[in-house]
Amino acid sequence: MNSFVYNIPTKVYFGENQLGNLTKELLKFGKRVLMAYGGGSIKRIGLYDKVIGELNAAGMEVYELAGIEPNPRIESVRAGVKLCKEHNIDVILAVGGGSTIDAAKFMAAGSCVEHDPWEFFGANAKPIDNALPIVTILTLAATGSEMDTAGVISNLETGDKLGRLAPALLPKVSFLDPTLTYSVSKFQTACGAADIMSHIIEVYFNTQVDLFMLDCFMEGMLKTIVKFAPEALADPENYEARANLMWTSSWAINGFINGGKRKAWSCHPMEHELSAVYDITHGLGLAILTPRWMEYCLDESNVDKYVQYGVNVFGIDSSLDKMDIARQSIRLTAEFLFDTLGLQRTFTEVGIKREDFELMARKACRYGEIKGFKTLTQADVVNIFEMCL
Amino acid sequence: MNSFVYNIPTKVYFGENQLGNLTKELLKFGKRVLMAYGGGSIKRIGLYDKVIGELNAAGMEVYELAGIEPNPRIESVRAGVKLCKEHNIDVILAVGGGSTIDAAKFMAAGSCVEHDPWEFFGANAKPIDNALPIVTILTLAATGSEMDTAGVISNLETGDKLGRLAPALLPKVSFLDPTLTYSVSKFQTACGAADIMSHIIEVYFNTQVDLFMLDCFMEGMLKTIVKFAPEALADPENYEARANLMWTSSWAINGFINGGKRKAWSCHPMEHELSAVYDITHGLGLAILTPRWMEYCLDESNVDKYVQYGVNVFGIDSSLDKMDIARQSIRLTAEFLFDTLGLQRTFTEVGIKREDFELMARKACRYGEIKGFKTLTQADVVNIFEMCL
Repeated sequence: MNSFVYNIPTKVYFGENQLGNLTKELLKFGKRVLMAYGGGSIKRIGLYDKVIGELNAAGMEVYELAGIEPNPRIESVRAGVKLCKEHNIDVILAVGGGSTIDAAKFMAAGSCVEHDPWEFFGANAKPIDNALPIVTILTLAATGSEMDTAGVISNLETGDKLGRLAPALLPKVSFLDPTLTYSVSKFQTACGAADIMSHIIEVYFNTQVDLFMLDCFMEGMLKTIVKFAPEALADPENYEARANLMWTSSWAINGFINGGKRKAWSCHPMEHELSAVYDITHGLGLAILTPRWMEYCLDESNVDKYVQYGVNVFGIDSSLDKMDIARQSIRLTAEFLFDTLGLQRTFTEVGIKREDFELMARKACRYGEIKGFKTLTQADVVNIFEMCL
Repeated sequence: MNSFVYNIPTKVYFGENQLGNLTKELLKFGKRVLMAYGGGSIKRIGLYDKVIGELNAAGMEVYELAGIEPNPRIESVRAGVKLCKEHNIDVILAVGGGSTIDAAKFMAAGSCVEHDPWEFFGANAKPIDNALPIVTILTLAATGSEMDTAGVISNLETGDKLGRLAPALLPKVSFLDPTLTYSVSKFQTACGAADIMSHIIEVYFNTQVDLFMLDCFMEGMLKTIVKFAPEALADPENYEARANLMWTSSWAINGFINGGKRKAWSCHPMEHELSAVYDITHGLGLAILTPRWMEYCLDESNVDKYVQYGVNVFGIDSSLDKMDIARQSIRLTAEFLFDTLGLQRTFTEVGIKREDFELMARKACRYGEIKGFKTLTQADVVNIFEMCL
């Protein structure tokens, strides 16, 4: 069992009607705020007007950066850095889902250095020692960016989609109001659920012995998704369902469940190459990959983990044969993702073609083999892609 | 479902061999440290020498306050405040279990005011706005004081044992090394497990609807205690068992599992009166009270909570009659506490006498009825005490 450091000081206002605390928190950092957001959804649900109203009433100096893309691009980050430097911004307010928050993180870091923010990524990445403070208002339960130190940025010029983590990127304060996710479409709700599920599975399926307590927490979060994602799809304004998905999204990836485990993730690095080339929704790519990856990795040496998962999350009868439980757990995972959540089940359906497999596999293994639950070579990645066709 | 604020910025070094980070963390606050501890146990296990060695090597100015009692007394707090003021202390290092950490919290707060620290307690308690920074090295998995904002202090003069919470009391950094609990006696290990269990049960048995995800976490922690407390008793140097109990102790009471629930606790206010009068170990008092309180509260209106608990924690067959499941869950809780953990099962065995019931019940209800899972009047408290004889 490895030692670890737990350090997640993000303050979270959870629930309805918490935005009255927004400017009090922002003003701890200063008066000049850059408000970053994506498309028109925050205007459609009235959130934009509400936030601007609060900021103006508190006498804050507000600058705006709109149009941050899903799979956010380095150009948006550069635009944000430029605004922060020009206007001597004190704090960045990210209003949106993971894409907006991820972009805000690298604007915050980029504002503290002279080099181009793309230099934070890749094999010779520059250090991230400082960042402007970030406050978030979350509108989508998915990536967990509201309470973690990570972000992923796409560069269409180089064809790369690269992640980075650094403690300085952790948001200082996040506002999680489940009602702000009422208007999230069925498709995005399903993709968000698949993303959260994947964050947990990437840690849970691990050959390192770690705290039983954390395994219980992960099983609890997986059960929460299995129970409430369908309820949110059936009844988008179900507060209990939206609240459970939202708080689960944060705890799935803030580092807590990780304990001392040090294995790499598997489906995420594969998926990032899909969405780098095809610009598909991250959670959809993960959904297609996950059950195939589970099937590809299963063997006698690791079957116990599948059994634990199948019994504790899906309630499979523990007296059955281990391999049968394992296969049933993979089948139930696939059924949940494709039948219950209604996500597309193959690369073919979403237009991902065999001709790009070699390139995407090579990029997924750009730093060497993927040393996760089971070590994956470039050839293994191609094999898993083949299973997804 | 109520809204809530999550804000637990304590940094935790978890695992073996983390003490090399101690002085780096202390020096963030300054060079003058007050090291507070209890009896001789930290000397016996070599921890005292190790810590002093680290502090000296880093050139820190060290003052000591030894002899903090189990059920820590206001006199110790006063002595600590005096030392902090005299020597202009920058940071308090509490080395020990919950008693030492609780005492350190009120030394830290008392050092920032002119009045006597006992004035932080009771009906007309003075505010706690500031406190010296607190760093802890935990040697007992039980109270969770290493990662929460609360503490309990006894005043033998007035016969009171009173709790208080304030954000300023939250430790800045805590060191949780499971090997430091290897030498904890069987009795104290059992009392610690009962204490952790009670912290969870006090929140779990709640009539307010809250996040399912948090209920799953609580069930996971209860299963962790049921699994690992016996292993720690059988094999005191079982790292996995000690580690699971230790991290569970922190998360059982740091506020996370509470979500938006606002009901008062029940067994804790009753128990504090037992240990105020009889100076018994807190966890033992809780163990004796808990199954009786569960039995006293059970009725048709709340049976579902017992069913959820019995099925998810103890694996009772969910197809049985609800009341049968509930009664079985109470019986299994009692068996775990008294047979598996080996704790004494009655007031009679520990010397608590009927003649003090009225006084203790009146004090338990000093602020009115206990508005917990089921509202308890003073007469209800006496009835529960009677069941414990």
